This record gives sequence, C-alpha cells and structure tokens, in this order.
Amino acid sequence: MSVKRTMEGFKMLVSVDEALRSILDNINLTPDVIEVNIQDALGLPVAEDVVAPLDVPPFDRSAVDGYAVRSSDTLGATLLNPVRLRIVGEVQAGDDPSRLPRVGEGEAATIYTGAPLPPGADAVVMAEDASRVGEYVEVKRQVTPYMNVSRKGEDFTKGKIVIRRGYKVQPWHVGALASLGIRKIKVFRRLKVAVLSTGSEVVELDDPRAGTPGTIINSTKPMLISLLRQDGFEPIDMGTVPDDADMIRSKISEGLRVADAIITTGGTSLGAYDLVPDVVARMGKVLFNGVRMRPGKPTGAGIINGKPVFMLSGFPVASLTGYITFVRPTLRHMTGTPEDPVPIVKGKITRRVANVAGIRTYLRVRVYPNERGELMVEPLAITASGVLSTLTDANAILVLNENVEGYDAGDEVEVMLISPLEAY
Amino acid sequence: MSVKRTMEGFKMLVSVDEALRSILDNINLTPDVIEVNIQDALGLPVAEDVVAPLDVPPFDRSAVDGYAVRSSDTLGATLLNPVRLRIVGEVQAGDDPSRLPRVGEGEAATIYTGAPLPPGADAVVMAEDASRVGEYVEVKRQVTPYMNVSRKGEDFTKGKIVIRRGYKVQPWHVGALASLGIRKIKVFRRLKVAVLSTGSEVVELDDPRAGTPGTIINSTKPMLISLLRQDGFEPIDMGTVPDDADMIRSKISEGLRVADAIITTGGTSLGAYDLVPDVVARMGKVLFNGVRMRPGKPTGAGIINGKPVFMLSGFPVASLTGYITFVRPTLRHMTGTPEDPVPIVKGKITRRVANVAGIRTYLRVRVYPNERGELMVEPLAITASGVLSTLTDANAILVLNENVEGYDAGDEVEVMLISPLEAY
Repeated sequence: MSVKRTMEGFKMLVSVDEALRSILDNINLTPDVIEVNIQDALGLPVAEDVVAPLDVPPFDRSAVDGYAVRSSDTLGATLLNPVRLRIVGEVQAGDDPSRLPRVGEGEAATIYTGAPLPPGADAVVMAEDASRVGEYVEVKRQVTPYMNVSRKGEDFTKGKIVIRRGYKVQPWHVGALASLGIRKIKVFRRLKVAVLSTGSEVVELDDPRAGTPGTIINSTKPMLISLLRQDGFEPIDMGTVPDDADMIRSKISEGLRVADAIITTGGTSLGAYDLVPDVVARMGKVLFNGVRMRPGKPTGAGIINGKPVFMLSGFPVASLTGYITFVRPTLRHMTGTPEDPVPIVKGKITRRVANVAGIRTYLRVRVYPNERGELMVEPLAITASGVLSTLTDANAILVLNENVEGYDAGDEVEVMLISPLEAY
Repeated sequence: MSVKRTMEGFKMLVSVDEALRSILDNINLTPDVIEVNIQDALGLPVAEDVVAPLDVPPFDRSAVDGYAVRSSDTLGATLLNPVRLRIVGEVQAGDDPSRLPRVGEGEAATIYTGAPLPPGADAVVMAEDASRVGEYVEVKRQVTPYMNVSRKGEDFTKGKIVIRRGYKVQPWHVGALASLGIRKIKVFRRLKVAVLSTGSEVVELDDPRAGTPGTIINSTKPMLISLLRQDGFEPIDMGTVPDDADMIRSKISEGLRVADAIITTGGTSLGAYDLVPDVVARMGKVLFNGVRMRPGKPTGAGIINGKPVFMLSGFPVASLTGYITFVRPTLRHMTGTPEDPVPIVKGKITRRVANVAGIRTYLRVRVYPNERGELMVEPLAITASGVLSTLTDANAILVLNENVEGYDAGDEVEVMLISPLEAY
C-alpha cells in the first residue's frame, strides 16, 4: 500500500471501524504471563480463568448474631407466645467445627455471625427476635430450615470461576482470592508501550530551548504517557527526534525491542517533513494512513514484526482521539480485556452541531445542570485539534457517528463523562 | 456518647446522611501540600487553582495545512472561478514569528498546521480548496477573516483556570500544563490511610495457621487496601490484632501517628469481643456506631485528634459498603475533590426486591442484555454480608434509598456499573 500523500489531502481514508479491524487482524503477539501475589495483582488482567479450589464457606455458618436452633422447635413462636429454649453453649466465628456443642430438642446455642452452625441446629434466630432470660432464650419469631444460615459452598462452590480470563483484578477479587486461600495468580504483565515524538521544531518541556521562538513544547507525549499509565500500561519514553528518517527508524527499532507496541506522534500530516509512515512502510507494513474521523484524521497504524505501531497526530486533541479510538482498544484486545464501563449521561444540547456524512466526530462538551435541574450539553468551540482547553474545560465527549447528520438545539443527546459533573 | 450495645441490637442507629455529615463536621486536618513535576502529578488533587501564566497560542497560527492569504483577495473564489495568488514563501510550525515572509495583496504563503500566521495574511485556505500551479496557487473557495486560524490566547488566555483546586490531575491536564510551560505544580500528598484488622480468630493469608480450623482468613483487609490503592490513596497495612483492648489501642495510636486516617475492621458487631468502639471512645470521640443501611449496619466512626477513625465490619461486603459510603467521600472531602463520574445504566429488574423503610440498601446485581437487547437487572441472592461471590458475580450495584419500598419485577431501575457489562 502506498503511503503517498499530497497537499490535496489524504488518499484512501478508511472508516474508524475498518481501521481498528485492520489492526486487530494483523497483530501477532502473545503477551507475557507472570505469577504475582494477589496483593500485587490489582488492575492486571488475569491470564487464565481463576477458579475456586474449595467450597466457601467450608461449612454451614450463621449469617447473623443470634441463637442456633432446631427450626421445628420454633413453630408458632410469636412476640406474644414466645418459645422458650435452653441455652447449651456459645459458638464464635473461627471455632473449630469439629468441637461444637450439640443442639438437641428444646435447646439453643448463642451464635455469632460467621460461626459454624452447631450439630443438631438447622437455623438461626436473629438476636432482635429473641430475649435472653437466664439460662434460657425466648424466641419470638418462627424460623424455617436454614434461615439466617450461609450454606456450605454458597459463596464459592469448588470449581466456580472467580475471575474470568482477561478481566482486570478488582479490589473485591483480591478479597475473594484471599478468602479462598489463593496466594498467587497468573496475570498478563503490564503491556509496555514506547512513545516517540517526531518534529524538528518540537522540544521537551525540560529542554532549555522550550518556549523560545521556533520551538513547540511537546505536550502530546506527556499526555499520552499519562493516559497509558492511567490505563494500567507501562509507558516507555523514547524522547523526541527531529524529522530525520534514519533517526526515526533507529528509535522505532529500539522501542520495539523493549516494548509490545509503539506510539509515534507527529510526522503523519500533510507537511513536507512527514516521514513516519514511509519509515514504517520500509520496516513492516502500513495498514492505514488517514481515518474518516475528526479530530484525528491524520492517524495511521502499521505492523512491524507482529507489533502494532500507532502513528498519531502531533496535536494533543487529535492524538487523544487516536489513543481512545485505536491504542486503548488494541492493547485491551491483546489481553482479552473488555472495555471498562463508561459513565454516560443524557442531556439537552444547547446549540446546533453538524456532522459531515461518513465522518465520526468527537466533540468536547460541557455538561451542567440548569436552574431547573435539567442536564444541558454545551458544545465547546473548536477550531483546531491542538486546542487543549476544550479538554480542560470539557467534562464530556459527544460522539457523532458516521450516520448522524447532527443535532438541533434542544435535542437530547448521550454523552460520555470524562470529569466530574460539577466541573466548571 | 455511649457505645454500649446488647444482643437486642444497636442503640441509636443513624441514617447514612447523618452519619457522613457527623464525620465531615468533626474532622480537622489540613492535608500536606507538596510540589511535584507535572509528569508525577497524574491522579493527585491540585492544592490550588492552576492558572495559565501566558496566552496560548502566543500568536495567531494556522489550524490547517494550506495557504495563508488576505481573505479579501479570495472574495468570490469558486471551483469554476478560482483566484490565482503568487506564493511568496513557506511557514512551518515552530518558525520564529518575527522572521516570516510578508503576504501582500495578490500573494499567499504555503503554511502548515500550527505555523504562525505571516504578517499581512488574515486567513488560511485549506489545502483541499486550492491547487498549486508552479509559483502560484489557485484558490477555489472564499475565506472570511481568521478562517482556519487559531487566534492568540484562544486556547488559554493568561490567568484562565486550567485545573481547579481539589480536582485530580488528568492526562489532558498534564498536556495542557506542558503546553503552558508549567513544569511543577502544588498538589495534595496522597492521603495515608492505616488499615487495622481485629479478631482473635482472624489470620493473615500468609500466616501458617491460615485455613486451619478455628481460623478465618482475613479477606477484608486486602480488599480495603486494594480499594484505597485504586482510589489513589496510600494504604498502610497495620496487620491483624486479637480482641485485646490494649493491643488495639496501641495499634490505633501507631497508625494515627503516621497516617491521616485509620480504618479498623471487625470488633463493631454485637459479639462479646467487640472492643474497638470502646477503645476509640477512650482515645477520642465516637460519632456513631450503627447505621441504617444494609449491608453494613455495624459501621461506626470516631475522631481522634481531628483524624477520622472508620470502624468497619469485618465482613467483606459490609466493609465495602462502609468504605464506599463513608471512607471514600470523607477522604475526597479532605482535599475538596469531587466524586468521579459514575457509570449508571437503566434496566428492567427481573424479580421483586423489597426494602425496609428508613434503611438504605445496597443490592449487588447482574446487568445483562436479553435476546431483544434490553438491559435486564438481576438481583443476586444475599444471605450474608460476607458473601463475596455476590460481588465477583455482580457487575453493578442497585441502591434502594430510605424512601424506596422496593421494586416489582419489570420495573425500570438505575444501577451503578462496577464491572464491564459483558461480565458473566
């Protein structure tokens, strides 16, 4: 495929879906699997289904504080006609199930939440439904068999899936694994992603030239590195190189030796110094260069030795769109990790927005409640894919899909929250 | 306030809102402020409004690739009647604005996205709307003043707020700060939270006794530590102590010497060995002990030297409710950090659920699309606040507020997603 471009525009623009499909169809990489302590597994995708090695609870146990009884003894018990049972012992959480008092007919045992149900008993009367009177308890409410009891294997039956392959370990998974006595699990190592910026005019923030005429501070790379970090990947900062094919090639090689994927920024638009797609074409294969979306039209991707190369715009907002649309879904696909839930809200759009047929548009919007408490969606002005303030002012993104012509003022739209609603 | 309890139940149960209010009204702690490099600020709440120190862009610049022109020269230009202008130079992103070609009447300059608008020009014709013919360009579409131009200060005007005090630094903030030349910002140091488990029967996962009769593996503490970590706080593991007032007191003291807050687990239910609230009452003040919510009724909080003490249940699901309801909002309040957007979806509930008047209930539910694509909400069976599988099986939480009696099968409800929708 030719990557030739001219001042007249990109050739062979592909749709967002086609573009993503082409990456997923072409990557060929098996992420490393490592074994970690469950305390260190938070946020990492598990490499295989994690299953319960045993029943939890390992025995019937009380779900409440109260009195272990034979349910048949409580038949007809009410507040006015309580049933009196003799207390024969006490059972606490953690007591050895093989050394418990036996509850016979007309008897009860004081029991605490989590304690094993003593032999003979088949239910627990809640403390609120009973009164202790010396050596006896007066039961004021009848219980049915296994009422207020957590049955053996009720939480996890042996063999039950606790975490599905590819899913990220959440805090409650860590709790569940601990309660199952599982100390280590197999997870995918954090994917390493090299980030390389190109552009002779682009300088790093800590470069002494930063801020002098003729330079542009690299704001895109720190943003991408932060996005990768926030998403649980391991960014590798490859720095900024000038528009020089040999230097770009050498850095891409270096990046792909250590990383599972590489992101380049800059060098994909129509300027005369756009070298990245040509370099990638010589090192591997360019899958697409130019996508029917905005911002982010000058986004490309390629494959080198089975690893994805994301060629993003050098402009922050366009590169963010490229990241969300291609980088994140591809990296999650590599470990079989489903998308996180997205906070979606509905609101009324404050002014007309138009879309170009066949283009997917990502509009930055501000969502706020009006004086009547209705959610309003205000599109922020955009003239350029470099305007970062539309992101710092925005608290949501409105996606106009390819088949949407636009919206009129007052139309209800669904937007994706990226910051708290209270945002200014 | 007395913290005396009996087997008959908790005295003086407070509502969730009253309980949280009492904590927020009583804490008295100024979190530490530190200065960090913007690359290290991701996820930390800023300690003061961060404002733009200068205009961005610092000059008018092109928002597209194309030709810088005098807009008046393009009047009436169309595809069939193009206007021919003489190209007098080329301007690239990063070129020194004081050394640019001057665009006179009937002239144009080739210009790239981000490049400074050369003197004389007041608009840019997009590359797509022009054709180069030798030393000339044929403009096929008229432009109005400042069309395709990003005006000076359009992104950030000097003094504009980039990040509001208390808000967490997001990836695009890092980008915005870099583009503004800001290298360091003041943020609140991650709040340190000590976590102490109590219970003579409770053993740590790596304790050789773990799994033997008479012991319960501590699954609550690893879950809480993971929650704190996921929320951007710094957990300090204080281990597990037996039900011994002196040991609990000593560990709470130790924890509060190094941490901004402490969470205890266990020792707050109705069992005979419930010591934590008594210890806290002697060290400071107990604000409440017992809340009208489920799970998590045996949740308490106190204040010692202005620092919050959260007394959570030893049972995982109840402690999770306590964490979400009290710990997270209190810690965010301490730095003025608004709640993150919550992913909410609507679905039809599959069976009847009842609530007890005046109680706030947190139901674990599974949300899935049925064969017609409608979202269904299935309440998961609960018998105990210890049942972790309801969390690993759940992908959402349904909150039944105090004034909600319940829902009938088929009712539409709003739930909060905690895991991907595709979850099993």
